[in-house]
Amino acid sequence: MAALTWGRLVKRKMAADSASASASASAPVLFSLLARSRRCHATVGTSKEDEDTHAHSTSPSILGPDLPDIWSSLPTSPPRPIPIPIPIPIPMPPAPPTIIDGKSIAQEIRSHISKHVINLKNSYDKVPGLAVILVGHRRDSQSYVRYKIKACNEVGITSFLAQLPHSCSEDEVIDSVTRFNEDPSVHGILVQLPLPQHMDEERILGAVSLHKDVDGFHPLNVGNLALRGRQPLFIPCAAKACLQLLLRHQIDLVGKHAVVIGRSKVVGLPTSLLLQRHYSTVSIVHAFTHRPEEITREADIVISAAGVANLVRGSWLKRGVVVIDVGTNPIEDPDSEHGYRLTGDVHFDEAVKVASAITPVPGGVGPVTIAMLLSNTLDAAKEACRSSV
Amino acid sequence: MAALTWGRLVKRKMAADSASASASASAPVLFSLLARSRRCHATVGTSKEDEDTHAHSTSPSILGPDLPDIWSSLPTSPPRPIPIPIPIPIPMPPAPPTIIDGKSIAQEIRSHISKHVINLKNSYDKVPGLAVILVGHRRDSQSYVRYKIKACNEVGITSFLAQLPHSCSEDEVIDSVTRFNEDPSVHGILVQLPLPQHMDEERILGAVSLHKDVDGFHPLNVGNLALRGRQPLFIPCAAKACLQLLLRHQIDLVGKHAVVIGRSKVVGLPTSLLLQRHYSTVSIVHAFTHRPEEITREADIVISAAGVANLVRGSWLKRGVVVIDVGTNPIEDPDSEHGYRLTGDVHFDEAVKVASAITPVPGGVGPVTIAMLLSNTLDAAKEACRSSV
Repeated sequence: MAALTWGRLVKRKMAADSASASASASAPVLFSLLARSRRCHATVGTSKEDEDTHAHSTSPSILGPDLPDIWSSLPTSPPRPIPIPIPIPIPMPPAPPTIIDGKSIAQEIRSHISKHVINLKNSYDKVPGLAVILVGHRRDSQSYVRYKIKACNEVGITSFLAQLPHSCSEDEVIDSVTRFNEDPSVHGILVQLPLPQHMDEERILGAVSLHKDVDGFHPLNVGNLALRGRQPLFIPCAAKACLQLLLRHQIDLVGKHAVVIGRSKVVGLPTSLLLQRHYSTVSIVHAFTHRPEEITREADIVISAAGVANLVRGSWLKRGVVVIDVGTNPIEDPDSEHGYRLTGDVHFDEAVKVASAITPVPGGVGPVTIAMLLSNTLDAAKEACRSSV
Repeated sequence: MAALTWGRLVKRKMAADSASASASASAPVLFSLLARSRRCHATVGTSKEDEDTHAHSTSPSILGPDLPDIWSSLPTSPPRPIPIPIPIPIPMPPAPPTIIDGKSIAQEIRSHISKHVINLKNSYDKVPGLAVILVGHRRDSQSYVRYKIKACNEVGITSFLAQLPHSCSEDEVIDSVTRFNEDPSVHGILVQLPLPQHMDEERILGAVSLHKDVDGFHPLNVGNLALRGRQPLFIPCAAKACLQLLLRHQIDLVGKHAVVIGRSKVVGLPTSLLLQRHYSTVSIVHAFTHRPEEITREADIVISAAGVANLVRGSWLKRGVVVIDVGTNPIEDPDSEHGYRLTGDVHFDEAVKVASAITPVPGGVGPVTIAMLLSNTLDAAKEACRSSV
C-alpha cells in the first residue's frame, strides 16, 4: 500500500524540533520554525522588546512555517518489532480541560502594544490612528465600536469615529472612507459590519486603501493569505485571534484535523486559510453541510463561527478536542441586567466535559480579536514610518 | 437537539429547483440558479451562440449560485409517520461507473470557442492572442507547451512563444513578461511552471498584468475567487476543468463532502475555493495530513492533485464516490514508445470498482484544462474589446 514516506519523515523532524523548542523556551513552538522561514520581512522596530511584540502580534509569525509538501508512494513499513508484554494501565479519570483565558492573553498583548506605541512616538513622532465608520443605530454594533475605541485609548492609539445615519447613501459612506484614506494621521480604517441592507458592502469595503485595511478584507490581502509563500499586509482580526489562542497554548496544528464551522470573510474563510498555512488538515462546515455533526466529531480542533447559539453540542465533539468558540450570540436571560446575555456557538456545559481545552464566551476569542485590531493598526503605523524614511 | 432548519429548507428548495431544471433542460442544473444571481456581469458577445459558450466556458457560471448561509437552531423534527411495511428489495449488482470522457467535453468546448473567435474577428477585427514563456529544457514542460500552442492554432487563437535558456536571469524572464504585457495583440500570458530553482516564481508571476493573467495565479484573482460575492477575472484552468467535468455530468455539489488532495495554487487551492462557492463541504488533504485515507473515505467527491502515482487506492474510497483525477505522473513502462506512460494519482483499476463516476488519465482532466486556457484567453480578448469601446 502507498505510504507517505517523506511527509511522515518531515512530520517526525518537526515533532522533534517542537519537542526541543518546548523544552528550551516558553515561546510557542512554531515561532522557532518560523525563524528559519525564507520570507520573514524586516520590521521598523529593532529593540528586543520590539521583536517580542512582533512575534506575538503581527503577520509573519502568525503565518506559520514554510515547509515543502513532499509526498511519496514508496512502501515504508519497517519490520515489526517482537512485542514486549506491557502492564495494563489503570484507567485515570480525564484531566479537567484547560479553560483558555482570552482576557489575560489580550491584556498581555495590549501591554506589549502600549510599549510599542510609546517607542513609535519617541523614535518617529508618530501616533498610530484608527478610524471607525459606524452606519446606523444597531445596539450590538454600537457596543462593539465602543469597546474598540476604549481599547485604542488604553494603548495610546488615537481613534476617529464617523457616525452616519441609517438613511445615508452609499456614496456618503464612501466619502468618509476616502477622507480617512487621505488623512495621514489615520493608519487603519474599519467599517463596522453589517451595513444597512441598501448598501453594497463589497463596494464600500473595496474603497478602503489596501495599506489601511486593518480588517484584512481586501481581496489582495485575502489572496496573499491563501497563497503560501506570500505575505498579506493584514489578516482578519478574529482569524488571527484564533491562531494566537492556539499557538500560545502550544496546540500542535501540523497535520491535525481542524473543522471550521462557518465560512464568512470575517472569521471562517481567513481562519481556514490560516490553519492551512500551519499545515492543519482543514474541513469547512457551513449551513449547507449534510450532517455537520459527523464531520465535526472527527476534528482534533473545532473553530466555530456560525453565529448560532449552542449549535455545537457535546455529542458533536471527540474526546480531547480543542474548541475555539468565536460565536457571540445574544440569548434571552431575565436575570441579566439588559434582559439578555451572550453565549457562544458551542454548548459550553456539554463541551467542557469532552474537550481538552476550550474558550469561554465571553472572555475567550472576543478580547483577543480586539487586541489583534490594535496590533494591525500598530503594524499599519509602522509600515507608514518605514515607507516615509 | 439543534437542527439546521433554514439551511435544510433552502437545500430542499434547491433540490426541487434542480429536479425541475433537470426535467426541463439539458444545461447543468446550477446554471439555472445562477441566472438569479445578482452579480452576473455583461459579456461582449450578445448572440445566442455567444451566451451558450459563455455558460459553458467562462467565469460567472463556473462560480456557482449566490445563496445565503442561513443557520437555525430551532427544533424541526416533524412527527414521525406510521411505518408502512415495504418489501425487501432483491440486491442488484452495482451499475458500472461512468467513465468521464474529458476528450469529448474538451472537443465540444473547443468547437464553441472556435465560433467565438470567428465572431470576434468579424465584429471587432480582433484575434485573441496567447503568449507562452518557457524557460529551460524540461521535456514535460516542452510537451505541455506544444499541446497548448497546437490547441490555440486549432481554434484560431494566435500563439506567441518566448523560449529562454535554463541559465537566463530572473530579470530576462521579467523582460519577456513586460514585453507581452505591453503588446496589444497578446491577451493572455502563461509562464510555464516549474521555473528553474534559481528564480523567484512569485516575483515573475507577479509581473504578469492582472488583465492577462489567464492562469489565474494573481493574488487579486485568488482573493476574488475566495470571497463570495466577488468575481475573479480568471480562475486557474485545472480548477475550472474539474468543475466543468462535475457540472456537465450533473453531479450534485451542494452540501456534498468533497475531499481535495493537494493544495497547490495551480489545482488544489483554487479547486477547494471553487467547490466552496458551489456549497460543497470541502476538506483539504495534503502531505502533512495524518491518515489521509480515513478522511478521503468519507468523501462523496474526491479531487486528487497530489502528483503521486497511484496514491489513492480503492480502499481510500467510499462506494459511489465521484473521482476526478488531476494527477499526470510518468511511470516506467518498457512497452511504451518512450519507455514511460502517464498515470493518475488514483489507482484506476481499483477505484473503478468502487466509484460511480471517474476520470481516466490520460483523457480526463487534461484536455479540459487546455480548453479552459483557451476559454480564459478568449475572455481576456473579449474584455479588451469591451474596455476599448
